[in-house]
Amino acid sequence: STHRLLPLFLGLFQGALLLFFALFVTYDKPSAQVEDANLVANKLYGIFPLFQDIQVMLVVGLGLLLTFLPQYGFSALTHNFLLLNFSTQWALVLQGLLHHFHHGQVHLDLHNLLTAEFAAVTVLISVGAVLGRTSPCQLLVVAACEVPIYLASEWAIITRLGVLDVGGTITIHVFSCYFGLGMSKALFGAVQRPVHPKETPTPRSDLLSLIGTLILWVFWPSFVAVLCQPGDAQHRAILNTLLAMSASAVTTVVASSLLESGGKLSPGHLQNGSLAGGVAIGAVADMAVPPVAALALGSLSAVACVLGFRFLTPLLARKLTLRDQCGIHNLHGLPGILGAAASAVAILVASKDTSGSHFSQVSSTRGNASEVLWGQWGDHGVGWQALCQVVGLAVAIGASLLAGLLTGAALRLPCLAQPPERLCFDDSLYFKIQDQAE
Amino acid sequence: STHRLLPLFLGLFQGALLLFFALFVTYDKPSAQVEDANLVANKLYGIFPLFQDIQVMLVVGLGLLLTFLPQYGFSALTHNFLLLNFSTQWALVLQGLLHHFHHGQVHLDLHNLLTAEFAAVTVLISVGAVLGRTSPCQLLVVAACEVPIYLASEWAIITRLGVLDVGGTITIHVFSCYFGLGMSKALFGAVQRPVHPKETPTPRSDLLSLIGTLILWVFWPSFVAVLCQPGDAQHRAILNTLLAMSASAVTTVVASSLLESGGKLSPGHLQNGSLAGGVAIGAVADMAVPPVAALALGSLSAVACVLGFRFLTPLLARKLTLRDQCGIHNLHGLPGILGAAASAVAILVASKDTSGSHFSQVSSTRGNASEVLWGQWGDHGVGWQALCQVVGLAVAIGASLLAGLLTGAALRLPCLAQPPERLCFDDSLYFKIQDQAE
Amino acid sequence: STHRLLPLFLGLFQGALLLFFALFVTYDKPSAQVEDANLVANKLYGIFPLFQDIQVMLVVGLGLLLTFLPQYGFSALTHNFLLLNFSTQWALVLQGLLHHFHHGQVHLDLHNLLTAEFAAVTVLISVGAVLGRTSPCQLLVVAACEVPIYLASEWAIITRLGVLDVGGTITIHVFSCYFGLGMSKALFGAVQRPVHPKETPTPRSDLLSLIGTLILWVFWPSFVAVLCQPGDAQHRAILNTLLAMSASAVTTVVASSLLESGGKLSPGHLQNGSLAGGVAIGAVADMAVPPVAALALGSLSAVACVLGFRFLTPLLARKLTLRDQCGIHNLHGLPGILGAAASAVAILVASKDTSGSHFSQVSSTRGNASEVLWGQWGDHGVGWQALCQVVGLAVAIGASLLAGLLTGAALRLPCLAQPPERLCFDDSLYFKIQDQAE
Repeated sequence: STHRLLPLFLGLFQGALLLFFALFVTYDKPSAQVEDANLVANKLYGIFPLFQDIQVMLVVGLGLLLTFLPQYGFSALTHNFLLLNFSTQWALVLQGLLHHFHHGQVHLDLHNLLTAEFAAVTVLISVGAVLGRTSPCQLLVVAACEVPIYLASEWAIITRLGVLDVGGTITIHVFSCYFGLGMSKALFGAVQRPVHPKETPTPRSDLLSLIGTLILWVFWPSFVAVLCQPGDAQHRAILNTLLAMSASAVTTVVASSLLESGGKLSPGHLQNGSLAGGVAIGAVADMAVPPVAALALGSLSAVACVLGFRFLTPLLARKLTLRDQCGIHNLHGLPGILGAAASAVAILVASKDTSGSHFSQVSSTRGNASEVLWGQWGDHGVGWQALCQVVGLAVAIGASLLAGLLTGAALRLPCLAQPPERLCFDDSLYFKIQDQAE
Repeated sequence: STHRLLPLFLGLFQGALLLFFALFVTYDKPSAQVEDANLVANKLYGIFPLFQDIQVMLVVGLGLLLTFLPQYGFSALTHNFLLLNFSTQWALVLQGLLHHFHHGQVHLDLHNLLTAEFAAVTVLISVGAVLGRTSPCQLLVVAACEVPIYLASEWAIITRLGVLDVGGTITIHVFSCYFGLGMSKALFGAVQRPVHPKETPTPRSDLLSLIGTLILWVFWPSFVAVLCQPGDAQHRAILNTLLAMSASAVTTVVASSLLESGGKLSPGHLQNGSLAGGVAIGAVADMAVPPVAALALGSLSAVACVLGFRFLTPLLARKLTLRDQCGIHNLHGLPGILGAAASAVAILVASKDTSGSHFSQVSSTRGNASEVLWGQWGDHGVGWQALCQVVGLAVAIGASLLAGLLTGAALRLPCLAQPPERLCFDDSLYFKIQDQAE
Repeated sequence: STHRLLPLFLGLFQGALLLFFALFVTYDKPSAQVEDANLVANKLYGIFPLFQDIQVMLVVGLGLLLTFLPQYGFSALTHNFLLLNFSTQWALVLQGLLHHFHHGQVHLDLHNLLTAEFAAVTVLISVGAVLGRTSPCQLLVVAACEVPIYLASEWAIITRLGVLDVGGTITIHVFSCYFGLGMSKALFGAVQRPVHPKETPTPRSDLLSLIGTLILWVFWPSFVAVLCQPGDAQHRAILNTLLAMSASAVTTVVASSLLESGGKLSPGHLQNGSLAGGVAIGAVADMAVPPVAALALGSLSAVACVLGFRFLTPLLARKLTLRDQCGIHNLHGLPGILGAAASAVAILVASKDTSGSHFSQVSSTRGNASEVLWGQWGDHGVGWQALCQVVGLAVAIGASLLAGLLTGAALRLPCLAQPPERLCFDDSLYFKIQDQAE
């Protein structure tokens, strides 16, 4: 029976994980240079609070954001939680095999866990396109496919192309968005379907979802800054993210109020638009851009997000029969593309402007990471680096769309127990809970 | 149409903000003494977790606390979020113009953002007095008026008078309370109105509001301690706040249970009384007071808060036709006055008691900040400093009441679209959401 | 009247607390070695974020987890909050009297507050067994009895026996579980009662409770690691906890889906099983165990927890008429026993394996705390230490069961106002709130 496939698959995976860990994984041995317990402790105190912030974002914030479907809240929270854990474990295995397989042992530390969690984030974003219409088995297959493709794409974009993307704008947000859209197209793109009666948010489910947005909004600076070089670059990344998100929040109200009839605000616009600046700022957050650039990028991406909800999503649904349940194209796709473009522009402008008033001042305080990267431009030239950002964006979109389409096709396998239309968006299909009508 | 006024005003402000940032604002250049990346990083690791705690308080905790109106939860959360962002941006501009306008450039760092956010807090507190009866346009006008007046009042109280108030008891809580009351009086004080049918909390909305209280309660020590001198003074501020809030929580149960018939507790008392100690402790948190003083102040302020809800609020409503929707006078006014008085007493007692057992021991470990301040007393005398605390309190009350009355009068402008009585306390006036009855 | 007993008791206690603090308690004077303000600040920055995480867990996370009773959410949150504050204050007094009463003064710092809060945790866990059927007066009597017994038991287990239990698996979780079960047996064990109509969760209350689980899940590493030696031991404790909890989350889905008919998941299993790994890992978290041990322990304890809910809880209810409202035996008892057994095995295996590949490598990086403890084994032998872990477990179970039975008998005093069966599980007995039916 298909009911047994989920525990079978998950159980086998947990067994394989235990075997892999037993054979290969040990805790990271600190190198001789950082023997001193104080240094280890200080390094931990630097990263751990940010790591916890990100955990809150992914487990509580993103989970709550997905509870806007009124009878699917328990599933949204649980599936998000299960996928986060499964994908992180799967990414740990793959990362171990790929990067750390030296001398027969894989070393594990908080930094590895963090990068594995970033791989899991792509899965959590992608499945937003098909929220409520897919079984847990299908979601696990998505995770199984998307994590290795993400790792390969990240390697190509960051390691090979040398793209600058400290906050994951291109590698995480754009990638996962087009993966999700491809998947949704291949899975559901054949026919147009009417609005499902359980698909419309209620005031209560919209409120819970907004709380999720606010939690994500608060902790987003930690997400962008956690992998920055400590010191000035990290400080700048935090400030840029704060400015971008503040501009997004205010601009979303402007845009939504102008587009909706009677000046009323749309809950969906607020839930997503307020976060658009955080998506867009990732690629430029630690660069020596002036504060006004962060504000402008935050405002622009919020406008793009709201316009996307108002015009592009209905258009894609009508013309391409493309479903995007959570509007991931508006929150992750459009702002991600804007952010990537902004990073190319920032690199071009920054180099021309080094004698200017803002930049000279800021760039003289650049941290070590970007120093190396600016240094690298000596070899390739600034134009080359700006081109790399654009090529990286194209690679992310192309690879993810293709992989998403293939994954979506695989999800049509009957054994994966896709729920029939009338049972969609309903917790009682997967959980022993009382009927909501009671 | 008045529907277009909100996006017009906000849009123009965002444009002006971009212009101001483009012309004047750059990121702070670290001074030569802290060039070392490690020092910058350590300073960031010290302040950033506290900053995030405060963001959670203001965005999630305070937002949820305001959701006690059952059909106004979405508005309460969104308006709080919008006001926080707008007021912070506005405070950044004004602070930039006032304090940092040296050499033609304004330097921005996390500390500036934090003090701008403190200015925004006063707005968030004040509008609690008129929650549910004001349009977003009116709220923005409140923010536009209150932020500059707060900055002027803070300059007069802290910089000119030298009042000690590390946790904002006088400058933030007392100020914003009387500003809000003045505003409410000028706006609604003409006539007595019956209880609105949507004004009564439901069990569900009371529960959400209590969750907000608990979040505020947990993170309050960060709010009080974030601007303390690192080291012993900050440690003491955290401990004093924890003790005061713990005493408040227990004493609120005692007081509410004694005052209500049948020994039942009132949700409103719990939601507010538990936080009263945090309001009161701000002015003495980093002083060399003994732990018992923090406990006593927490208990007293909780009693004052509960008595205020039980007797004073109905009295003010009857005699002065003064509305105070969230009871800000009980949570911010009365405990704030108690805290200011306590700071004067603490200064007088501490000086007399330097040969005593507690104080000699504690005062020998005083941190740098308070050391300077105690030192200052050599010039003025201890009585002078105690007097300053009282004068500061009087200035805060007087200035805020007057400014609040004027602001409230300005809010009666017809173009600001104050909602008619029958449409108050209802999300559907501002948001495209389903009717709550469904 | 019994309505007056609660404020009378709490009021008297607050008065006694004030007196005790006035007479004896001062803030800790930093020793001469850490005079330097930077060192004090760095120490504070190390512990304070973890302390705040634990506050969020206890106040918000645990409170929400208990809101699964649909008409008892306000009581669950408030009683949890009141008990936390009362028990922490009571533990501060007792700890002060017991440990710190040197030279006539008790010194208070953040570390004391933290250990007092750990004592309070035992009360919060124990009362889960009788949630919804006990009055606030009864809960305060539980706290008054359990805190001193916990302090005595912790002294016997940690100080006298030298048991290793950095995360409180034995001293907190096992102790509080059997204390709660003993109490429940003595209080309610006489008769079998049918299911109460208000005892069944609704989808809404299950969702709130799951959010509580997720908050606990995210911050659990801070709970386990806060008392570790800074540096490698703390880093290892964090990683072990993260791995154990990740394995628990996935394994709970496997186990629940296999046990429930139709492969549907049970909300109760998810709410508790996901946390089982955190309970079990506490005793071994900072030991030099390989990562696979943390994963295996997390999986095993989740299986034990789910099996407990499915088979053991109904069996105990039928055979022993033992009520366990929150299933604390499944979340704290069974995983705690597993964790204690694992700590004994880990000690035996680690010593045999010091020439093996994982252990030699890891053990060479052991932090100071465990170094001392491994060193201690030179005196007693490894077998002795392993035996100590088992004896400590037996002491915790025996002492807590006995004390719980006696406390439960004391709770039957008529003056404590135990609610009659038909009024159980209902907020309106203790709070002035509208009827839920409205």
